Amino acid sequence: MAQPAAVPVGAAVTAVRQASLREHNLALVLRQIATADRPPSRADLATATGLTRATVSALVDDLITGRLLTEVAPAPRSGAGRPAVGLTLADHGPAGLGLEINVDYLAAVLVDLTGTVRHRAVRRVDLRPVPPAEALSLVGELISEAGAEADRQDLTLAGTALAVPGLVTATGLVRLAPNLGWRDVDVPALLGAHPILGGRGLGVDNEANLAALGELHAAPPGSANFVYISGEVGIGAGIVLHGTLFRGARGWSGEIGHVPVHPEGRPCRCGGRGCLEQYAGQEAILAAAGLTDPPSARAPSTGRPARRHGPNGPLRVDGDRADDGSAARGIPVPGAAIARLAEAAARDDPAACRALVDAATALGVAVAGVINLLDVDTVVLGGVYAPLARWLAPTVRAEIGRRVLTAAWSPVTVRAALLGGDAAALGAAGSVVRTVLEQPARWLGRTAR
Amino acid sequence: MAQPAAVPVGAAVTAVRQASLREHNLALVLRQIATADRPPSRADLATATGLTRATVSALVDDLITGRLLTEVAPAPRSGAGRPAVGLTLADHGPAGLGLEINVDYLAAVLVDLTGTVRHRAVRRVDLRPVPPAEALSLVGELISEAGAEADRQDLTLAGTALAVPGLVTATGLVRLAPNLGWRDVDVPALLGAHPILGGRGLGVDNEANLAALGELHAAPPGSANFVYISGEVGIGAGIVLHGTLFRGARGWSGEIGHVPVHPEGRPCRCGGRGCLEQYAGQEAILAAAGLTDPPSARAPSTGRPARRHGPNGPLRVDGDRADDGSAARGIPVPGAAIARLAEAAARDDPAACRALVDAATALGVAVAGVINLLDVDTVVLGGVYAPLARWLAPTVRAEIGRRVLTAAWSPVTVRAALLGGDAAALGAAGSVVRTVLEQPARWLGRTAR
Ligand SMILES: [Zn+2]
Ligand SMILES: [Zn+2]
Repeated sequence: MAQPAAVPVGAAVTAVRQASLREHNLALVLRQIATADRPPSRADLATATGLTRATVSALVDDLITGRLLTEVAPAPRSGAGRPAVGLTLADHGPAGLGLEINVDYLAAVLVDLTGTVRHRAVRRVDLRPVPPAEALSLVGELISEAGAEADRQDLTLAGTALAVPGLVTATGLVRLAPNLGWRDVDVPALLGAHPILGGRGLGVDNEANLAALGELHAAPPGSANFVYISGEVGIGAGIVLHGTLFRGARGWSGEIGHVPVHPEGRPCRCGGRGCLEQYAGQEAILAAAGLTDPPSARAPSTGRPARRHGPNGPLRVDGDRADDGSAARGIPVPGAAIARLAEAAARDDPAACRALVDAATALGVAVAGVINLLDVDTVVLGGVYAPLARWLAPTVRAEIGRRVLTAAWSPVTVRAALLGGDAAALGAAGSVVRTVLEQPARWLGRTAR
Repeated sequence: MAQPAAVPVGAAVTAVRQASLREHNLALVLRQIATADRPPSRADLATATGLTRATVSALVDDLITGRLLTEVAPAPRSGAGRPAVGLTLADHGPAGLGLEINVDYLAAVLVDLTGTVRHRAVRRVDLRPVPPAEALSLVGELISEAGAEADRQDLTLAGTALAVPGLVTATGLVRLAPNLGWRDVDVPALLGAHPILGGRGLGVDNEANLAALGELHAAPPGSANFVYISGEVGIGAGIVLHGTLFRGARGWSGEIGHVPVHPEGRPCRCGGRGCLEQYAGQEAILAAAGLTDPPSARAPSTGRPARRHGPNGPLRVDGDRADDGSAARGIPVPGAAIARLAEAAARDDPAACRALVDAATALGVAVAGVINLLDVDTVVLGGVYAPLARWLAPTVRAEIGRRVLTAAWSPVTVRAALLGGDAAALGAAGSVVRTVLEQPARWLGRTAR
């Protein structure tokens, strides 16, 4: 009953051969270089692709001119003949800018073609009282900063993608971001004209989707089926199946925060009752643990938050966010509160432990439903769940064991996310870079003009 | 950030052209004929496919010899020249046999290449006390009967598929069918040697998946995204996205019956608590309405149930199953009990109405979770839910309206299934027929030998 693979026939084959063969061969050569163990030579590429040496050389020359490839010193080589020049992805060409706007922080990362993070910035700010246009102007500042940094490091912005915790349409309109209080915010209209973007526009996507893509690209090969749960003030899910992000019929999948776990329970901002978010969202956990800043401690928003630039080092894997001192000025810093919660749990504080078990039970109930429906083999705890995974995962596992029909035959892994709090920005930047790698002809066409 | 379409390049294109072009062209011609408004001529096919007339004629001759096509009288034609002979799918060639084994009935249908149901049989029997081998021998009787009927009607069995309400592996092993009480039942080993199957084996699949495929093929074009809910003693879901059955990472998706709706509620056969099945399964509804036959009224199983052959007419759309008289012999007949429930609801019986509202509320809670996660636009109420849809759908819609984050922008349709109680058997037979249409070269190769 298997479906046959779709294969173009007749006219379609001819069209592919005539119009797109160069495009596909450019991508093929680039893919070979990106996945090789050591920098391959032109001859290695000819062997691997089945293309002639002359064809490979012409393609490679175009890719070097377009700053997608760079030549490196020959590696020592066994056998006869001169060692040949090797080829690697360029670290001075296109870069992807990934941005995230969330309820209590903004993030920006710049990732080059090799996947290296070249710039990283996080700003703590409670965006709930800030109007969308003002919030986006703060994002605009991050864009300017990243653009200046790209220039300084001899990188060219290939594209920009923004992660938003809400429902985003194909044109970048944010239909609803309940925890930001946004409705029908046209992000490209408000931000797309930013001079750094150079008229190339701005991709906008759901933050859990982009964080799941970031996780997919950071994880070892074979991590093809998982649900990434992004625990923040809201809770979103990015569903990856067979190595592909599953977006649902209309692009609005993954709203796990509003899956009912207690049908007639606590009212939710969405208008429903008993949604997961009300039991396992960041604020519910902190309140249950007695760690919420009282409302009187919150300073009025100035729209000019404290700045913090992250290190330009390797990806952090703990998901933690250090206090940047803004708490002292009365701005609530959930990153710091989550760190305090983890400390309290580590010393067996009863309220902290109870809060985490209760949140994990609600999360496990919702996740068991997800696995019964979707049959994924891995649950990735992301966002603020990552630094709390040590305390959350055992209870989530227990609920899965109790409630998932296939649990006996199909063990489910529950683990912390590999990426930290800026996973969505990293996924956004990575998606831009991958588009360049998969469609290099577009990039070459742009730089040739 | 869109992924480019996969297109074969270089060697792959050559391989497709040389080895498989005839196979693809056979399928192409067949597809043209299957989807044409009126029987096309060979000349029409040459125009539509871009193939030469000689090529089309050779392909058509092979398809006629293989009993996949038949010639029909020329239609009146405008313009000059003699009217040409038209071509249609054959109604005397291959047929698919679809079977279903469920908790309280067995079903078999024989469907020809044109999609016409040529034979249909349903047997009422409570299979819970019947050992798997004995239950499958009853299925074997249905196979023998259908085989004889195929011979009588000049049809050839192209394949057989069996629907089972449980977790089925790729090799047809039923890992678990909780409501049948089956564990690790190797269906092909027990039934695959049946003489009518002619050594061609037996496909086995989950009943909700096959019923969803049946619904997909019966529905008007454009019904590409839906969740089909199969309400029986158990509750399963078949998820169709972008016109394709979504099977999950390991093939065990759609276990909506075990999605928790009251986390610490009623214990379930699966070992969990508060599963949807305990609130909206057939037995829960009938018990709440006071319509369950008391256990003492159940006759011990004889393994030889009453027989009932359905009409050989068009597909029934009400999902009802008439009483076949077996109730008089003490065998519980939920089809009849569901009909009594519908009658009671129609005269506003308070217990019946309350039972239906309560079941629909639980169903709506689970379905709201599904839509929040998967973003489907249509919910199809199948199995015993179909004849009850008039009373269930309003409450399900209300829960969706309350609980689905995207409900305001993406209205969700809730409707009764188009197919009746043998939807899974129809889907199973249809899947066999579609395989012949999509891979006609396999069928031709088999008949040529
Ligand atoms: Zn909600
Ligand atoms: Zn259950």
